[in-house]
Formats: sequence, structure tokens, C-alpha cells
Amino acid sequence: MADKKKRRRAPNESDDEPDALQFKSKLKNDSTILQTLKTLKSDSAASSSAKTLALSDLNLSTACREVSDLPLSSVQSNIESLALTLAHSILAGNGFSFSVPSRAAANQLYVPELDRIVLKDKSSARPFANVSSVRKATITARIIQLIHQLSLKNIHVTKRDLFYTDVKLFQDQSQSDAILDDVSCILGCTRSSLNVVAAEKGVVVGRIIFSDNGDIIDCTKMGIGGKAIPPNIDRVGDMQSDALFILLVEKDAAYMRLAEDRFYNRFPCIIVTAKGQPDVATRLFLRKMKMELKLPVLALVDSDPYGLKILSVYGCGSKNMSYDSANLTTPDIKWLGVRPSDLDKYNIPEQCRLPMTEGDIKTGRDLLEEDFVKKNPGWVEELNIMVKSKQKAEIQALSSFGFQYLTEVYLPLKLQQKDWL
Amino acid sequence: MADKKKRRRAPNESDDEPDALQFKSKLKNDSTILQTLKTLKSDSAASSSAKTLALSDLNLSTACREVSDLPLSSVQSNIESLALTLAHSILAGNGFSFSVPSRAAANQLYVPELDRIVLKDKSSARPFANVSSVRKATITARIIQLIHQLSLKNIHVTKRDLFYTDVKLFQDQSQSDAILDDVSCILGCTRSSLNVVAAEKGVVVGRIIFSDNGDIIDCTKMGIGGKAIPPNIDRVGDMQSDALFILLVEKDAAYMRLAEDRFYNRFPCIIVTAKGQPDVATRLFLRKMKMELKLPVLALVDSDPYGLKILSVYGCGSKNMSYDSANLTTPDIKWLGVRPSDLDKYNIPEQCRLPMTEGDIKTGRDLLEEDFVKKNPGWVEELNIMVKSKQKAEIQALSSFGFQYLTEVYLPLKLQQKDWL
Repeated sequence: MADKKKRRRAPNESDDEPDALQFKSKLKNDSTILQTLKTLKSDSAASSSAKTLALSDLNLSTACREVSDLPLSSVQSNIESLALTLAHSILAGNGFSFSVPSRAAANQLYVPELDRIVLKDKSSARPFANVSSVRKATITARIIQLIHQLSLKNIHVTKRDLFYTDVKLFQDQSQSDAILDDVSCILGCTRSSLNVVAAEKGVVVGRIIFSDNGDIIDCTKMGIGGKAIPPNIDRVGDMQSDALFILLVEKDAAYMRLAEDRFYNRFPCIIVTAKGQPDVATRLFLRKMKMELKLPVLALVDSDPYGLKILSVYGCGSKNMSYDSANLTTPDIKWLGVRPSDLDKYNIPEQCRLPMTEGDIKTGRDLLEEDFVKKNPGWVEELNIMVKSKQKAEIQALSSFGFQYLTEVYLPLKLQQKDWL
Repeated sequence: MADKKKRRRAPNESDDEPDALQFKSKLKNDSTILQTLKTLKSDSAASSSAKTLALSDLNLSTACREVSDLPLSSVQSNIESLALTLAHSILAGNGFSFSVPSRAAANQLYVPELDRIVLKDKSSARPFANVSSVRKATITARIIQLIHQLSLKNIHVTKRDLFYTDVKLFQDQSQSDAILDDVSCILGCTRSSLNVVAAEKGVVVGRIIFSDNGDIIDCTKMGIGGKAIPPNIDRVGDMQSDALFILLVEKDAAYMRLAEDRFYNRFPCIIVTAKGQPDVATRLFLRKMKMELKLPVLALVDSDPYGLKILSVYGCGSKNMSYDSANLTTPDIKWLGVRPSDLDKYNIPEQCRLPMTEGDIKTGRDLLEEDFVKKNPGWVEELNIMVKSKQKAEIQALSSFGFQYLTEVYLPLKLQQKDWL
């Protein structure tokens, strides 16, 4: 293999710093590393089949509410029953009112057993015959009517499309967006069940075959560009894979390096990125892969508070969609790198590290107070190193040892040493 | 076909406004529209084989400079000859100096015959033995050395990777980026020939088959998500298509609607979007499609100055990469919609139009002064309507007539009426 030859080449080759060589020499052969990964995969499969805890399994003192993925026919019938209830109420002379679950911060709860944020069960009434709520009640009724149309036609639209169907009523997209989330909670289903999707920006490449709207997609044959992650997760299915793990990458530059070097052929894996902040489509796709294929997920993010925050959104959910955390989050993501302790360990040159701003440091300190960080002592330790050293670094900083250092030395060594948290 | 049935349904159906029906009734059957498109395609193929004017064909009074796509071996040998010249100069006791083409605005020229911006031939010396240029000369030498490494290994990296290989010297990414553009001009080749690529964000779906790094990609079998456009255009090849045109879409929401409705099966076409501001990878891909397949390109953008600006970047190039306009621009893009005159013609409701801000109006007026707008009287007229009415609208505004109005009425009617400029 070409890779092995390179690892043994003379130390005076132009792009190799002495520091880089020091780590190359630690690398064992690929079969040893593959054995490590096989163990990781079987452990992960065992643990994911064992502890699929649901909210209902816990005897929580507070009642909690969750939405679930519903088939279109159930969304339809839920809407029709709701309409019937409202009609009865009107005919009985009581007018009509929606009971809307509260999505406010005070109604949110982090559940350590589930390792995600859920919604408590507080609701409020939204009566039509009330000056303060008549507008919201009208918008709610209109959104529900539009969702019913989508379910009849079985087509998908974006939030922006939804807004434009009745600009006069909605006035502003933030209003239709907020009430769309309310409608998810009212009907007890996920936003994707409503056929309202977010624009996709993620890509996937590597050892996975799946169907997208009936077309079979083989991601080992997607060149360097990879396959764009579909916006409609309900049309994705038939996942098959011989991968040993999923590599979740924060940035597209690192993704590109991995795709061009066909890293997934040397270490069988699936490589996925949302190109920065995770979007809903990528989060749903990652979760589906993890659940159906029972693969461990290893994350490669920048060594800064933002990287850890991105990790937490994949893992535990974002606060404004906590009602849907069960469907959007991927449990048990391992933090592979780039971790604050790696900067010294791998001798990242001083000039490739960036000083943290006041804002960065504050974000880092805030993260130390978050439940999902606290429950993982390794993460707390890393975050403490970051906040104390006041240094951050991007994944790209590894390029200072040569463009292919990431794929030829850093990642193989991390995998060999089981260096994830 | 399901579409035809829908078009004949009763006028009292909930999502059909009377205005929407008025246009549905104008639609002829698909075979008539397909005939129109076949004529468009053969006209386009004829004109593109006739007038492939190059800069060298014109007898311009000003000398101009252009870069071209070079194979890696030529990039290597260009660098090696340059190094040899510099070594000779040093050995002769003259030190060394780079001759760097100027990329300043004063050195740019719009060439109406080519319909794009090119660079004039002004150059300046960048001597090493001079306090004011020693730093830039050093960075130039280092970048050239790194590019030589890339060409030997035949791998691709991003600008960010390049920056991180020598942060101490470059200090700031803007410095290595600017000198990378200088190096393109010095070596007379495109940035993609240097194997430095931009992150991709475009997607493509529809009637095209091509190879990406050796993998054969059939874009009719890419589900709704489509295929991510590869960052490295030099690894894209073997394009085949039975499409009649390319539909260039500004936004991903409209792209998604077209992909889900499989618009390309009803009217054979290739649908492509960069999801907003065009990136280099999408521009290169569009140009390659246009050139190899000889297809007409129809553009669907928002009806605002920004939409027209995006069109102009695809068509005529951006000012800061004018040295590479020949390789990045796609000639003869037709403005299909949404055009300012469409707002009244299609009775877009008042509440779906947005008032233009002062900044929008200024941008619109500035565009009226641009050569690439002036040479197309139809565009000038449309832009005048926009600036006078002070109204803009997004593609999504068409959703006010129903979610599928774009694919079932608006676009088919536009195509039927040859309503492009």
C-alpha cells in the first residue's frame, strides 16, 4: 500500500516536520487498528440494543411530553379528530380553543437517564373568542388546514413555502414558524411527520447503501462530492452497511480530505458532515444510521467551545426543539478529536493555535455548567484544559504537518489508541 | 398523468385561487411544450458551436491576459522553469524577483464581444531584495513550493489547508489567499489547476450522467436530495444527457420542489443550484455542462437586484476573479423568471411582494450602469420596472397559489410561451 511506504520515508522529506514523524512511527499496521474498531462496533451494538430507554420507561416525578414520528394517515386522522372536537365545542355554544403545550425554558427538563432535554407537560389554552389570542388561534387553524392539505397530497414543503401561502394572515415568517412548532406539539408528531422540511446542507460518503425516494444510492460510488443528504427522512430507507463506525465531521474541508483519500476504504466507515451548525435533515439522517445500523459514532470537531456545542446538538438536542429530542438526537456520540489535550499531545505548533476571545471563554464556562457536559467527566476535563489554556484550534491546524497528516497519521493513531471520550 | 387530472379539477378546490386557474387554462399539452424546448436546444447548440469566440480572436487595442486550465504536468513544469529562471538570476548576481500581473480594478476590462470581464496586461515586479516587497516575495515563493508538492502528490486541498501549512509566515488567511490568486496569474493557470479547491455547496439532479473521480453518477437516480457537486472539476468527466435544457435555480426551496415533483421527467432537464451566492465549484460545473452538452441554460432567480446579480456572476464573472473569467463563466444564460414583469402578469398578490429597501434600490440602479445588463435591452426594461415599482418578490411567492404552482403551472407556461430573455 502506498500509505505504508510513505510512513517509512526519509525524515528529510520537505513536508514532514520531526514532530509529525514521531507519531507516524507509533502507528501499527492497519489490521491491528481494524481489530480495535471491530470491538468498538460490537460493544456499541450490544449497548444500543440493551438500553433503548424511552421516556415512558422512567418513573419520573414530573410528567413529560414527547412527539413521535407518525405516518401521514395518522397525521390526517389526528387533524380530523381535532376538527371534530372543535366543531362539537362550537355547536355546544362554547366556541373553540386549542390546548397548546408550552415550549418555554421553564417547561424544559434535562433527563440524565436519557441524556437529552425533554418538555414537561404544561399547556395553555388558546381560545378563539378572546382578543389576546384570536390572532394566534386563527393562525393555528390555518396552519393545521395547510398541513392537512400536504398530508392529502403527500408532498413536502419548506417553512418558507408555508409562510407564502398566506402572507396576509401570517405577516412575518417567524409567526408561522412558531405556530408550526406549536402544531407539532398539539398533534403529538414530529415536524417531519407534518411534511414540512428544512433545506438540506449535509453530505454523506463511504460504506453505506440506502434508498432515497425509491432510488438506491451507493455512497462508496459517489466520487469526492458525496451524496447530498435528502431533506425528507421519511423517504430514506433500506440502509445497509459493512462499516465499523460512523465518522461525524464538523467542517467540509476535513470532509473533503477524507473523501478524496477514500479513508472509508482503509478503515470501513461512513463519513458525514453538516458543514458547520447541524441542520435537522443531517441530525435525522445520523440518528437513523446509528439506530438502524447500530454503529458507534465518532466525532471530529474543532477544538473550541463551538465544536463541543455542535457535538451537544447532535447528541442531546437544541433547546428550541426539545419537544422533539427523542427523534432528533443521536445517543452516545464519542468525542474523538480535535480535543484540547491533543494540542500539546500532538505538538500542534504555537502559531496554529488561536487565542480564545472573551466570548469564547464565556461560552466554554457556560458549557461546564450544562448537564450533558457534566455527566461525562472526560469532557469536563477537556473543557477545563481549554478554558485554562485559553487556546483553540481548528481541525485544519493538523495540516501544518502535511496535507494528509489527518488521514495518514492523526486519525489512524487515534483509532489505534482508542482515544475517544 | 396525474398532473393533467389536477389541472382540470373543479375551481372550488381549496388551494386554487381564481388567478391561479386563469393561467392553468392557458397551458397546452406537454408535447407542444416539448417541441418548443427542442427548438430552443437546437438553436442553442448551433449558436454555441458557431461563436466560441476567444480573447485571441478579437483584435483588441488593449492587450489582455487570461489563465487557462492546465494539466498537472504543465503546472509542475511551469513551476520548475520559473525556479530555474530565478536561480539563473540569483547566480548572475541579480537576486530574484517575481513579475506579478495586476488584479486591480484599473486593470480590468469588460469585453462586450465575449460578454465577460477580463484582465489587462499590467504587471509589477516583486523583488526579494527590497524591504517593501520581501515579505510578499517570500510568501509567493512558499505558495509556489506548496503548489508544486500538491501537483507531485496529485491531491486537492482547500485555501484553509494551505494557510495552516505555514501560519507563522502567512499570519492571516487573507494574505495566503491573495497570493494564491497572484500565483494563478503568474503561472497562467486557473486556481483549480493548482489543485486548490473551494468547499462545494451546490447540488444537481435530473437528466445527466457523469463520472466523479471514476464513479459513474446517474442524477436521475439521486432521489430528492440530488448529488453534491464535486469540489474538484478536473475529476469530473464523461457527461451524457438527453436533457433539452439546464434549469439553474437560485434557492434550495425551489430546487427541492422541482426535485420532489421530478420535474425533469416531465420536461427533460438538468436542475442545478448553488443554494444562494454561486460558489466556484458550481460555476465550473455549470460551465462544463453547458460546453460539453451544448444545452441552453434557463435561470430561475428571485425578482430582486440580488437575483440579477447572481445571474451576472454565473454569466459574466465576479470582479475579483476576472483573470479567470473564461473558465468560470457560462455564456448566454436566459433569464426565465421570476422577472419583475411577472409580478403583475401572474397577479402575485400584493401581500407576497416586499417593498425594496433603499439599499436594494441603489443596487438596482447600479446594475443599470453595468455593461452586462446594458447589452441586453430586455434585462434593462425588467430592471427599470423593478426600480420604478420598488417591489421585489421571492420565487417562493408563487406558493401563494398552491404549493405546486411553480412546477405545474408557472414553469410549464413560461416554457410554452418561450418567455425568457
